[in-house]
Order: sequence, then structure tokens, then C-alpha cells
Amino acid sequence: MPLLYHHPLDPHSRFVRLALAEYGIEPALVEERVHERRTEFLTLDPAGRTPVLVEEEGTVVPGAGVIAEYLDETAGAALAERRLLPTEKTARIEVRRLLDWFNQKFFAEVSDWSVTEKIYKRFLPADRGGGAPDMHLVRAARSNIRYHLRYIGYLIGRRNWLAGERMTYADLAAAAHLSCVDYLGDVPWDEDEAAKHWYQRMKSRPGFRPLLADRLPGVTPAAVYADLDF
Amino acid sequence: MPLLYHHPLDPHSRFVRLALAEYGIEPALVEERVHERRTEFLTLDPAGRTPVLVEEEGTVVPGAGVIAEYLDETAGAALAERRLLPTEKTARIEVRRLLDWFNQKFFAEVSDWSVTEKIYKRFLPADRGGGAPDMHLVRAARSNIRYHLRYIGYLIGRRNWLAGERMTYADLAAAAHLSCVDYLGDVPWDEDEAAKHWYQRMKSRPGFRPLLADRLPGVTPAAVYADLDF
Repeated sequence: MPLLYHHPLDPHSRFVRLALAEYGIEPALVEERVHERRTEFLTLDPAGRTPVLVEEEGTVVPGAGVIAEYLDETAGAALAERRLLPTEKTARIEVRRLLDWFNQKFFAEVSDWSVTEKIYKRFLPADRGGGAPDMHLVRAARSNIRYHLRYIGYLIGRRNWLAGERMTYADLAAAAHLSCVDYLGDVPWDEDEAAKHWYQRMKSRPGFRPLLADRLPGVTPAAVYADLDF
Repeated sequence: MPLLYHHPLDPHSRFVRLALAEYGIEPALVEERVHERRTEFLTLDPAGRTPVLVEEEGTVVPGAGVIAEYLDETAGAALAERRLLPTEKTARIEVRRLLDWFNQKFFAEVSDWSVTEKIYKRFLPADRGGGAPDMHLVRAARSNIRYHLRYIGYLIGRRNWLAGERMTYADLAAAAHLSCVDYLGDVPWDEDEAAKHWYQRMKSRPGFRPLLADRLPGVTPAAVYADLDF
């Protein structure tokens, strides 16, 4: 059984958990607090970030993007037409473009601020940046998320799923990041009906269930968080 | 002939220029000032970032990471044992890990601050963030780069090139980012001898010459910038 070093509210870890579920791979989960910078963890990934996947035979695969490519190359063909990174050239470009959009741009403009300010800073000592959330950053995230929701709505208005007619890594990444912000009650679902309906579809996938059951000690999720019909 | 939308001192654009040279592909270069947010450019890449590669038949490939994967899939096999993303499983993981390291981590901790503060802010109006460089950020970049140089030296002490026995995307990305900071005179080459020697090797590659000839109006490069024996 592979190991996945993750954090329950790290959006990149959640993306990989959703992907593994689609591949039918059930990893053992190891919760890693990256801010503690454990030496053993840094030898797995010198960049010190979750997620890191460790195969039973010892292969170490660090980082959400690297894991996505690795899984496609080692397990993608078995999914046939449900492949999360489709084989056609322009489809691959579009999926990877949107994967970067959510794992990098949405993260930088929304989910990193939400999660760092409202979650990670609770568990950090003051001399390492811990403390009360910087509400300036939380508000910036709340403002930025509106345009991302409209972008999701725009794409879904033209396609069945974010990158085309099939569900792909793009949908999993978008849903993973949104789910973290949603846990904190900061997704304004009334901003875009199409985006909301797409997220309802994502939420009802079997692979989503473990994420909806995640609970962080001392941080109660928003009322609609686990509700499939929010 | 493909088009490459780029900026001369954008490290991600430079990475792709180096890669294209290794593939023997000579693109027409179109200088894009992403801060102007031209509508035509945003239709190519809604994220509004350089580089964007546009093939002669119309295929649009946006973003350094997406372009790297695209080039490997469409032109990689022809490079045979000089392939920039080697075919063996763990080698691919290592190259992609280091590609993320330089294109994301080094960028966030060093080259983004250097280039944004010292270059982009010159060309921006004050109401869009233009003005004098924030020397706090420039100093942070100058401090962070030391540990990255030592990391390069550490890797080169164990291997011929950054990701293994052959030159790969990892070397091109690292050299691309360093070259931007070097233009600005902010690489402390005395920090690590092994890193310096590796960069000398990179600098002497034919694909590097056009980068060393780049001149930005009003911004003279550092004395050692184009010097192969610095």
C-alpha cells in the first residue's frame, strides 16, 4: 500500500487524494505538519511541501504536479476513456493549463491565504509566524474567489467538465482547492449558479466522501461543507 | 515557424528559449509586456503570463511547465539519449521535481522579486504598482539565493548535471532563473564554486548565446553577465 504524506486542509494534498480515488488506489495517509520541517520529511522532499507519495517499492514522488504526471504515466492507460489526462494533444494542453491555474494561480490568490491565515497560523508558535489571521489577506482571498467562480461558470457554460467533455485532473484540482475554502465557509456560492452545480456533481463522487468527513480539531467546518445539496 | 510570446528578463520565457534551442526549434520572438494585459494576449492565455508558444498550425501552448511537457511529447523522442525529460520513471520524477523547484520555489523566493522590483516596476505607472524597487524584497532575494546556490553545488557534487548524468530541463530552468538575477548583478558567485562551474558549462551552450546578447533599454547588465569566464 502506498503512503501519502498530506495535510487534511492542504488543497494540493486533497487534489492527489481525489486523483488516487479515481485510479482506485487507496493510500495510507500520514498527516504531515510541514511547518515543523521534520528532517525525515525533508529527505523525502527537500522543498518540504505536502503531498508526497511513497510507493510500496520505495519510489518517492513529491509534489502535486509531479504526482499527477507520474500517476498518468504509470496508471493512466488503465482508466481508458476515463483517463484524467486525456491522450489527445490539445486536450493535454488544456488539462495542464487548468491544473496550473488551480494548483498555482488559485492557490496564490485564494486558497493559500485562506488556509494559511485561518488554519496553519493556529498551530504555529508566534516566532514562526503563528497567531491571529491577517484579515487583510483573508478579505483579499474572499474578493479574488469571486472571479475564479465566474471563470469556472464560464467554462462549464461551454463544456460538460472544466477542460472538456470528460472529467479530468482540472476538475479534481479546482474542487480540491474550493473544498478547503468551503470548509472555512468562504465560498460565495451565490456568485455563479453553473459553478455551484458543477461543484455539486464533484461533491457527489465517491472519492470526495473522505474529504467531506475530514474534521480539524478545534475548527468546525461551515454548515454547508458536507451537504451534497447545499 | 512557431511564435514565442516572451519577455527578455522573464525567467520562465528564458527557460523555454533554452529548451527550444536544445530541440533545434527557432521561434519568432514576440515581446509581451504582461502588465499591459492586452486582450489578444489574454485570449491566448487567460492567466496572462509569459511564455506562450503558438505553433504554425495554430496550437497554443501556455506556460513554461505546460510547454516543457508538450515539447517532450511532440519532439522529445528525436533527441534520443539527449532527451531533456529522460524516459526512465525515477529520472522523470527527479527532473520534474527540480523543474518545480526552480520554476516555482526559486521564482517565489528569488527571481520574481529581483525582476519585478528592479525591472517591471520601472515600466509600470504608479497606480499599477510601478516606482522604485522595494529594497526589502530585493535584499530578501539576495539572501535567499545563497541557499539555492549551495543546493545547486550540493547536487553537482553528487552528479554530472542537476538531475543526473545528463543535462535535462532541470539545468535549463535553474540557469534561466539565475541568468535573470545575474543580469541584475545579484548572484554572489563566490558562495559556491561547484555551482559557479556548472553555470559556466551552461553559459557556454549555443542556446545560451541569444540570452547573453539580450539588452534591456536603460538597464545595463552586470559586468560579468555575458562573460563566459567570470
